[in-house]
Amino acid sequence: MKRTGPTDSGCPVLRSLRHVGDAWSFLILRDALAGATRFDEFQRNLEIAPNILTNRLVSLVESGLLERRRYCDRPPRDEYHLTQRGRDFRPVLQALLVWGNQHLAPEGESVVIVNRETGEQAEPVMVDRLSGRPLSDPVFTNASGPAAGDRIRRRYPSMDQFPQHEEAGR
Amino acid sequence: MKRTGPTDSGCPVLRSLRHVGDAWSFLILRDALAGATRFDEFQRNLEIAPNILTNRLVSLVESGLLERRRYCDRPPRDEYHLTQRGRDFRPVLQALLVWGNQHLAPEGESVVIVNRETGEQAEPVMVDRLSGRPLSDPVFTNASGPAAGDRIRRRYPSMDQFPQHEEAGR
Repeated sequence: MKRTGPTDSGCPVLRSLRHVGDAWSFLILRDALAGATRFDEFQRNLEIAPNILTNRLVSLVESGLLERRRYCDRPPRDEYHLTQRGRDFRPVLQALLVWGNQHLAPEGESVVIVNRETGEQAEPVMVDRLSGRPLSDPVFTNASGPAAGDRIRRRYPSMDQFPQHEEAGR
Repeated sequence: MKRTGPTDSGCPVLRSLRHVGDAWSFLILRDALAGATRFDEFQRNLEIAPNILTNRLVSLVESGLLERRRYCDRPPRDEYHLTQRGRDFRPVLQALLVWGNQHLAPEGESVVIVNRETGEQAEPVMVDRLSGRPLSDPVFTNASGPAAGDRIRRRYPSMDQFPQHEEAGR
Protein backbone atom coordinates (compact mmCIF):
# COMPACT_ATOMS: atom_id res chain seq x y z
CA MET A 1 0.00 0.00 0.00
CA LYS A 2 2.92 2.40 0.29
CA ARG A 3 3.57 2.92 -3.38
CA THR A 4 0.29 1.89 -4.97
CA GLY A 5 -3.33 2.30 -4.09
CA PRO A 6 -5.78 5.15 -3.94
CA THR A 7 -4.75 8.78 -3.87
CA ASP A 8 -4.32 10.25 -0.41
CA SER A 9 -7.57 12.14 0.03
CA GLY A 10 -6.81 12.87 3.67
CA CYS A 11 -8.97 9.98 4.87
CA PRO A 12 -7.52 8.89 8.23
CA VAL A 13 -8.35 5.22 7.60
CA LEU A 14 -6.47 5.27 4.33
CA ARG A 15 -3.52 7.05 5.91
CA SER A 16 -3.42 4.50 8.72
CA LEU A 17 -3.38 1.69 6.20
CA ARG A 18 -0.48 3.27 4.34
CA HIS A 19 1.57 2.78 7.50
CA VAL A 20 0.11 -0.48 8.76
CA GLY A 21 -1.46 -1.96 5.70
CA ASP A 22 -0.62 -5.61 5.68
CA ALA A 23 -1.31 -8.48 8.00
CA TRP A 24 2.33 -8.98 9.00
CA SER A 25 2.57 -5.42 10.29
CA PHE A 26 -0.57 -5.91 12.39
CA LEU A 27 0.84 -9.13 13.82
CA ILE A 28 4.22 -7.58 14.62
CA LEU A 29 2.39 -4.83 16.50
CA ARG A 30 0.23 -7.42 18.26
CA ASP A 31 3.39 -9.12 19.52
CA ALA A 32 5.11 -5.85 20.39
CA LEU A 33 2.07 -4.87 22.47
CA ALA A 34 2.36 -8.26 24.20
CA GLY A 35 5.96 -7.40 25.11
CA ALA A 36 8.12 -8.74 22.28
CA THR A 37 11.12 -6.57 21.39
CA ARG A 38 13.68 -8.81 19.72
CA PHE A 39 13.99 -10.06 16.18
CA ASP A 40 14.15 -13.68 17.34
CA GLU A 41 10.98 -13.32 19.40
CA PHE A 42 9.02 -11.92 16.49
CA GLN A 43 10.40 -14.56 14.17
CA ARG A 44 9.58 -17.42 16.51
CA ASN A 45 6.07 -16.18 17.26
CA LEU A 46 5.17 -15.38 13.68
CA GLU A 47 7.03 -18.08 11.75
CA ILE A 48 7.90 -15.29 9.34
CA ALA A 49 10.74 -15.31 6.80
CA PRO A 50 13.67 -13.20 8.09
CA ASN A 51 13.73 -10.93 5.04
CA ILE A 52 10.01 -10.17 5.35
CA LEU A 53 10.37 -9.52 9.06
CA THR A 54 13.32 -7.18 8.49
CA ASN A 55 11.37 -5.35 5.81
CA ARG A 56 8.31 -4.86 8.03
CA LEU A 57 10.35 -3.79 11.07
CA VAL A 58 12.16 -1.17 8.96
CA SER A 59 8.84 0.04 7.66
CA LEU A 60 7.31 0.29 11.16
CA VAL A 61 10.39 2.19 12.37
CA GLU A 62 10.13 4.57 9.40
CA SER A 63 6.44 5.06 10.17
CA GLY A 64 7.29 5.96 13.74
CA LEU A 65 5.48 3.05 15.44
CA LEU A 66 8.64 1.29 16.60
CA GLU A 67 12.05 2.60 17.55
CA ARG A 68 15.26 0.68 17.26
CA ARG A 69 17.59 0.46 20.25
CA ARG A 70 21.00 -1.19 20.21
CA TYR A 71 21.30 -3.62 23.09
CA CYS A 72 24.47 -5.42 22.10
CA ASP A 73 27.46 -4.11 20.19
CA ARG A 74 29.30 -7.34 19.43
CA PRO A 75 27.58 -8.78 17.57
CA PRO A 76 25.39 -5.77 16.75
CA ARG A 77 21.85 -6.47 17.95
CA ASP A 78 18.85 -4.18 18.13
CA GLU A 79 15.60 -4.24 20.02
CA TYR A 80 12.38 -2.76 18.71
CA HIS A 81 10.35 -0.76 21.19
CA LEU A 82 6.92 0.70 20.69
CA THR A 83 6.72 4.48 20.49
CA GLN A 84 3.68 6.35 21.77
CA ARG A 85 2.30 6.15 18.21
CA GLY A 86 2.75 2.39 18.30
CA ARG A 87 1.18 2.04 21.75
CA ASP A 88 -1.79 4.08 20.58
CA PHE A 89 -2.45 1.42 17.94
CA ARG A 90 -3.66 -0.99 20.62
CA PRO A 91 -7.39 -0.21 20.21
CA VAL A 92 -7.23 -1.27 16.56
CA LEU A 93 -5.94 -4.69 17.59
CA GLN A 94 -8.44 -4.91 20.42
CA ALA A 95 -11.23 -4.21 17.93
CA LEU A 96 -9.89 -6.97 15.66
CA LEU A 97 -9.73 -9.32 18.65
CA VAL A 98 -13.35 -8.59 19.55
CA TRP A 99 -14.54 -9.10 15.99
CA GLY A 100 -12.54 -12.31 15.63
CA ASN A 101 -13.96 -13.68 18.87
CA GLN A 102 -17.45 -12.69 17.84
CA HIS A 103 -17.45 -14.12 14.34
CA LEU A 104 -14.50 -16.45 13.78
CA ALA A 105 -14.19 -18.56 16.91
CA PRO A 106 -16.83 -21.29 16.57
CA GLU A 107 -14.90 -23.49 19.00
CA GLY A 108 -14.84 -20.77 21.69
CA GLU A 109 -12.51 -17.94 22.57
CA SER A 110 -8.77 -18.51 22.57
CA VAL A 111 -7.68 -15.03 23.62
CA VAL A 112 -9.70 -12.74 25.86
CA ILE A 113 -9.12 -9.47 27.66
CA VAL A 114 -9.44 -9.70 31.43
CA ASN A 115 -9.35 -7.34 34.37
CA ARG A 116 -6.34 -8.48 36.42
CA GLU A 117 -7.93 -7.34 39.66
CA THR A 118 -11.30 -9.01 39.35
CA GLY A 119 -10.51 -11.80 36.88
CA GLU A 120 -13.54 -10.65 34.96
CA GLN A 121 -13.51 -10.88 31.21
CA ALA A 122 -13.78 -7.44 29.65
CA GLU A 123 -16.50 -6.68 27.13
CA PRO A 124 -14.76 -4.19 24.89
CA VAL A 125 -16.98 -1.63 23.22
CA MET A 126 -16.20 1.61 21.43
CA VAL A 127 -17.99 4.53 23.04
CA ASP A 128 -18.00 8.29 22.86
CA ARG A 129 -16.00 9.47 25.84
CA LEU A 130 -18.22 12.54 26.32
CA SER A 131 -21.65 10.96 26.34
CA GLY A 132 -20.69 7.37 27.12
CA ARG A 133 -22.91 6.21 24.26
CA PRO A 134 -21.73 3.31 22.10
CA LEU A 135 -20.53 4.45 18.70
CA SER A 136 -22.71 1.78 17.12
CA ASP A 137 -25.66 4.06 18.00
CA PRO A 138 -27.03 5.42 14.72
CA VAL A 139 -26.88 8.92 16.18
CA PHE A 140 -23.19 8.84 15.31
CA THR A 141 -22.09 9.41 11.74
CA ASN A 142 -18.98 10.32 9.85
CA ALA A 143 -18.62 13.95 8.83
CA SER A 144 -16.00 15.96 7.03
CA GLY A 145 -13.75 17.84 9.39
CA PRO A 146 -11.96 21.18 9.25
CA ALA A 147 -9.09 19.93 7.06
CA ALA A 148 -11.28 18.02 4.57
CA GLY A 149 -10.50 18.46 0.90
CA ASP A 150 -13.00 18.30 -1.97
CA ARG A 151 -13.12 14.52 -2.18
CA ILE A 152 -13.91 14.05 1.48
CA ARG A 153 -16.46 16.87 1.42
CA ARG A 154 -18.27 15.16 -1.44
CA ARG A 155 -18.46 11.97 0.63
CA TYR A 156 -19.46 13.21 4.05
CA PRO A 157 -21.60 16.13 5.21
CA SER A 158 -19.69 18.89 6.91
CA MET A 159 -19.68 18.73 10.70
CA ASP A 160 -20.89 22.37 10.62
CA GLN A 161 -24.16 21.27 9.04
CA PHE A 162 -25.30 19.55 12.21
CA PRO A 163 -27.00 21.40 15.06
CA GLN A 164 -24.36 23.07 17.14
CA HIS A 165 -23.74 21.85 20.64
CA GLU A 166 -23.28 25.38 22.02
CA GLU A 167 -26.73 26.40 20.78
CA ALA A 168 -28.31 23.17 21.93
CA GLY A 169 -26.89 23.76 25.38
CA ARG A 170 -28.35 27.26 25.88
CA MET B 1 -2.71 -13.79 4.03
CA LYS B 2 -5.16 -16.46 2.96
CA ARG B 3 -2.71 -19.01 1.69
CA THR B 4 0.54 -17.93 3.34
CA GLY B 5 1.48 -16.59 6.72
CA PRO B 6 1.58 -17.95 10.22
CA THR B 7 -0.17 -21.10 11.33
CA ASP B 8 -3.65 -20.58 12.72
CA SER B 9 -3.03 -20.78 16.44
CA GLY B 10 -6.58 -19.70 17.21
CA CYS B 11 -5.55 -16.07 17.78
CA PRO B 12 -8.60 -13.95 16.95
CA VAL B 13 -6.48 -11.12 15.53
CA LEU B 14 -4.78 -13.50 13.13
CA ARG B 15 -8.10 -15.04 12.13
CA SER B 16 -9.56 -11.61 11.48
CA LEU B 17 -6.63 -10.74 9.27
CA ARG B 18 -7.07 -13.90 7.27
CA HIS B 19 -10.45 -12.54 6.22
CA VAL B 20 -9.68 -8.83 6.04
CA GLY B 21 -5.94 -8.76 5.70
CA ASP B 22 -5.14 -6.20 3.08
CA ALA B 23 -5.72 -2.50 2.77
CA TRP B 24 -8.14 -2.81 -0.15
CA SER B 25 -10.48 -4.99 1.88
CA PHE B 26 -10.46 -2.47 4.73
CA LEU B 27 -11.23 0.35 2.30
CA ILE B 28 -14.06 -1.56 0.62
CA LEU B 29 -15.59 -2.13 4.05
CA ARG B 30 -15.07 1.55 4.92
CA ASP B 31 -17.07 2.49 1.82
CA ALA B 32 -19.72 -0.18 2.39
CA LEU B 33 -20.22 1.16 5.93
CA ALA B 34 -20.63 4.63 4.40
CA GLY B 35 -23.42 3.24 2.19
CA ALA B 36 -21.75 2.08 -1.03
CA THR B 37 -23.23 -1.09 -2.55
CA ARG B 38 -22.40 -1.05 -6.26
CA PHE B 39 -19.29 -2.03 -8.13
CA ASP B 40 -19.10 1.37 -9.82
CA GLU B 41 -19.32 3.21 -6.54
CA PHE B 42 -16.49 1.22 -5.01
CA GLN B 43 -14.42 1.62 -8.13
CA ARG B 44 -14.95 5.36 -8.34
CA ASN B 45 -14.24 5.94 -4.66
CA LEU B 46 -11.19 3.73 -4.51
CA GLU B 47 -9.64 4.22 -7.95
CA ILE B 48 -9.07 0.48 -7.85
CA ALA B 49 -8.41 -1.77 -10.84
CA PRO B 50 -11.59 -3.73 -11.73
CA ASN B 51 -9.92 -7.12 -11.43
CA ILE B 52 -8.58 -6.31 -7.97
CA LEU B 53 -11.98 -5.00 -6.88
CA THR B 54 -13.74 -8.12 -8.20
CA ASN B 55 -11.24 -10.31 -6.39
CA ARG B 56 -11.68 -8.50 -3.06
CA LEU B 57 -15.48 -8.44 -3.31
CA VAL B 58 -15.54 -12.19 -3.97
CA SER B 59 -13.26 -12.72 -1.00
CA LEU B 60 -15.41 -10.58 1.31
CA VAL B 61 -18.52 -12.45 0.17
CA GLU B 62 -16.78 -15.79 0.81
CA SER B 63 -15.77 -14.55 4.24
CA GLY B 64 -19.35 -13.64 5.01
CA LEU B 65 -18.87 -9.89 5.41
CA LEU B 66 -20.78 -8.94 2.25
CA GLU B 67 -23.65 -10.59 0.48
CA ARG B 68 -24.35 -10.31 -3.21
CA ARG B 69 -27.84 -9.33 -4.37
CA ARG B 70 -28.93 -9.18 -7.98
CA TYR B 71 -30.59 -5.85 -8.70
CA CYS B 72 -30.76 -5.99 -12.48
CA ASP B 73 -31.13 -9.01 -14.75
CA ARG B 74 -30.37 -7.48 -18.11
CA PRO B 75 -27.54 -6.76 -18.00
CA PRO B 76 -26.80 -8.84 -14.90
CA ARG B 77 -25.77 -6.51 -12.08
CA ASP B 78 -25.20 -7.22 -8.41
CA GLU B 79 -25.12 -5.11 -5.31
CA TYR B 80 -22.97 -5.88 -2.30
CA HIS B 81 -24.64 -5.48 1.06
CA LEU B 82 -23.03 -5.74 4.46
CA THR B 83 -24.02 -8.74 6.55
CA GLN B 84 -24.16 -8.53 10.33
CA ARG B 85 -20.58 -9.81 10.35
CA GLY B 86 -19.63 -6.95 8.04
CA ARG B 87 -21.50 -4.34 10.08
CA ASP B 88 -19.78 -5.57 13.21
CA PHE B 89 -16.45 -4.67 11.62
CA ARG B 90 -17.20 -0.96 12.05
CA PRO B 91 -15.31 -0.56 15.35
CA VAL B 92 -12.09 -1.70 13.67
CA LEU B 93 -12.42 1.09 11.11
CA GLN B 94 -13.39 3.58 13.79
CA ALA B 95 -10.25 2.64 15.72
CA LEU B 96 -8.16 3.16 12.57
CA LEU B 97 -9.88 6.53 12.04
CA VAL B 98 -9.07 7.63 15.58
CA TRP B 99 -5.44 6.56 15.28
CA GLY B 100 -5.06 8.23 11.88
CA ASN B 101 -6.52 11.48 13.21
CA GLN B 102 -4.31 11.31 16.25
CA HIS B 103 -1.03 10.60 14.54
CA LEU B 104 -1.25 11.15 10.80
CA ALA B 105 -3.22 14.34 10.29
CA PRO B 106 -0.73 17.18 10.90
CA GLU B 107 -2.91 19.56 8.88
CA GLY B 108 -6.00 18.81 11.00
CA GLU B 109 -8.80 16.27 10.83
CA SER B 110 -10.45 15.47 7.51
CA VAL B 111 -12.98 12.94 8.75
CA VAL B 112 -14.55 13.00 12.19
CA ILE B 113 -17.37 11.18 13.94
CA VAL B 114 -20.18 13.46 15.10
CA ASN B 115 -23.36 13.10 17.08
CA ARG B 116 -26.12 14.08 14.64
CA GLU B 117 -28.33 15.42 17.42
CA THR B 118 -25.86 17.68 19.15
CA GLY B 119 -23.34 18.31 16.38
CA GLU B 120 -20.68 17.41 18.88
CA GLN B 121 -17.59 15.60 17.71
CA ALA B 122 -17.37 12.17 19.31
CA GLU B 123 -14.24 11.15 21.19
CA PRO B 124 -14.11 7.44 20.49
CA VAL B 125 -12.54 5.32 23.16
CA MET B 126 -12.55 1.58 23.76
CA VAL B 127 -13.94 0.73 27.18
CA ASP B 128 -15.04 -2.33 29.10
CA ARG B 129 -18.82 -2.35 28.93
CA LEU B 130 -19.11 -3.76 32.46
CA SER B 131 -16.92 -1.38 34.40
CA GLY B 132 -16.83 1.53 31.94
CA ARG B 133 -13.04 1.68 32.36
CA PRO B 134 -10.94 2.43 29.29
CA LEU B 135 -9.17 -0.65 27.97
CA SER B 136 -5.93 1.34 27.89
CA ASP B 137 -5.96 0.99 31.70
CA PRO B 138 -3.08 -1.36 32.63
CA VAL B 139 -5.52 -3.37 34.74
CA PHE B 140 -6.60 -5.00 31.49
CA THR B 141 -4.46 -7.67 29.94
CA ASN B 142 -4.74 -10.42 27.38
CA ALA B 143 -5.32 -13.90 28.72
CA SER B 144 -5.82 -17.30 27.17
CA GLY B 145 -9.46 -18.28 26.99
CA PRO B 146 -11.32 -21.58 27.26
CA ALA B 147 -10.54 -22.68 23.68
CA ALA B 148 -6.83 -21.78 23.76
CA GLY B 149 -4.39 -24.30 22.37
CA ASP B 150 -0.81 -24.84 23.50
CA ARG B 151 0.68 -21.94 21.56
CA ILE B 152 -1.74 -19.41 22.96
CA ARG B 153 -1.36 -20.79 26.47
CA ARG B 154 2.40 -20.36 26.25
CA ARG B 155 1.89 -16.71 25.28
CA TYR B 156 -0.79 -15.56 27.68
CA PRO B 157 -1.65 -16.51 31.27
CA SER B 158 -4.89 -18.42 31.63
CA MET B 159 -7.89 -16.32 32.59
CA ASP B 160 -8.43 -18.81 35.44
CA GLN B 161 -5.20 -17.68 37.07
CA PHE B 162 -6.63 -14.29 37.96
CA PRO B 163 -8.70 -13.69 41.08
CA GLN B 164 -12.25 -14.76 40.41
CA HIS B 165 -14.96 -12.17 40.22
CA GLU B 166 -17.47 -14.32 42.07
CA GLU B 167 -15.15 -14.55 45.08
CA ALA B 168 -14.24 -10.87 44.93
CA GLY B 169 -17.93 -10.01 45.01
CA ARG B 170 -18.74 -11.98 48.15
